[in-house]
Amino acid sequence: MARIGIFDSGVGGLTVQRAVLDALPGADTLYLGDTARVPYGTKSAETVTQYSLRNARFLLGQGIDLLVVACNTASAVALPALRAALSVPVLGVVEPGARAAAAASRGGAIGVIGTPGTVASGAYQAAIRAVRPEARVVARACPLFVPLAEEGWTDPADEIVAGVVRRYLSPLAGEGIDTLVLGCTHYPLLKAAIAAALPGVTLVDSAETVAAEVRARLGTSTGRAAVHRFFVTDAPERFLAVAGRFLGRPVEAAEHVDV
Amino acid sequence: MARIGIFDSGVGGLTVQRAVLDALPGADTLYLGDTARVPYGTKSAETVTQYSLRNARFLLGQGIDLLVVACNTASAVALPALRAALSVPVLGVVEPGARAAAAASRGGAIGVIGTPGTVASGAYQAAIRAVRPEARVVARACPLFVPLAEEGWTDPADEIVAGVVRRYLSPLAGEGIDTLVLGCTHYPLLKAAIAAALPGVTLVDSAETVAAEVRARLGTSTGRAAVHRFFVTDAPERFLAVAGRFLGRPVEAAEHVDV
Repeated sequence: MARIGIFDSGVGGLTVQRAVLDALPGADTLYLGDTARVPYGTKSAETVTQYSLRNARFLLGQGIDLLVVACNTASAVALPALRAALSVPVLGVVEPGARAAAAASRGGAIGVIGTPGTVASGAYQAAIRAVRPEARVVARACPLFVPLAEEGWTDPADEIVAGVVRRYLSPLAGEGIDTLVLGCTHYPLLKAAIAAALPGVTLVDSAETVAAEVRARLGTSTGRAAVHRFFVTDAPERFLAVAGRFLGRPVEAAEHVDV
Repeated sequence: MARIGIFDSGVGGLTVQRAVLDALPGADTLYLGDTARVPYGTKSAETVTQYSLRNARFLLGQGIDLLVVACNTASAVALPALRAALSVPVLGVVEPGARAAAAASRGGAIGVIGTPGTVASGAYQAAIRAVRPEARVVARACPLFVPLAEEGWTDPADEIVAGVVRRYLSPLAGEGIDTLVLGCTHYPLLKAAIAAALPGVTLVDSAETVAAEVRARLGTSTGRAAVHRFFVTDAPERFLAVAGRFLGRPVEAAEHVDV
């Protein structure tokens, strides 16, 4: 079975790894969270590309057959540089998410939410229009969603959670979208609250679509026990404190590395 | 007149610079925001110290007479390393803030709020007890305050702002504190909302106390026009978009530098 490398700016990419593990339970994985430089979403494309190359080279050095860029911001701005520099296939989360949204939308009015960096890059907007040129795409950055998810404040009945979600998403509801891309790895933790604010809107989680693409590339899994290693560039104990909530299963150890 | 160097992890340190400019209108200043590595508050002491040394060396290379570490997290963990490495006086925000809080508290029950890094360091707690050993210090990290301030969601009448502030601060009110240290440079923007949640509690803004200490060291200003330069390690346009709100006066240009 193949070894899959996954990197993200921090802990959020574990929602992508979770989907990959669900799709390919037999695959070995190496996860790198760049917690010394998190977040990427407010940084420039040049800086994010530089950090992404370092992360990818570290994982390549550990021996991987395929790289998943779990971070939406890095997927949005650094894929061409990564594909040029690496000898293994590189999958981002933007293209699969965009294709799934274009396919799911009935009327062609599609919302995209993400970090300021992802939204400003226009990558989702361009990727959706590439497969569905007549689509109308409305994008919005939601900077408070990441700290809400990291605090564990995700209950739709929590008035703060509901209030923040409503404030960001009401304008999208007013635009008449029928499909919304969760364009940040933290956002699936807020899925219930987002669904409550946008009744009738189809939510597209890039994690699931990229996992399906990984399975299409690597085939189905064997039955043997897989090995999963976790690396972080800073503060393993803080990563471990929240990692289980994002991965949906226990994470027992994370190794501190410089990349 | 002296040249004062000021660094912070990002834009928040401009609230400290604002207080310094109010106290010494004639001083020249060089401000460095490490926007490529922001935030420091969730990173380890080793990583924050390494970044702080790079920032300080850059400013020293530009020619400064005194360094103000405007970032609470860096002040909490990196001052000894900075003082050992630099040939100019180094002032942090923790000691002045702690002394002001110890002096202001009637009953000796003092609250401290800051980033997870600042609170976990225990630096404020130790600095307060160093000058007032019988003080009872209650500390709490408030991770949502920084994104609220950066979004400009600071109105005490805003139900989200009031709700978040209440959730973090109600436990401190229950502890009977009479003084609260705003131990993060972003928090002064939420001062009105914090005051509304803690009636009768004295709020201590480290920015004002460190500015008074800078003036005590450098003397009062001359009447000539001062020169202020701003440097950032990433995305000058994003810095400029919010800098004015933090500095309280226009910021027209920021230079992109690698440190």
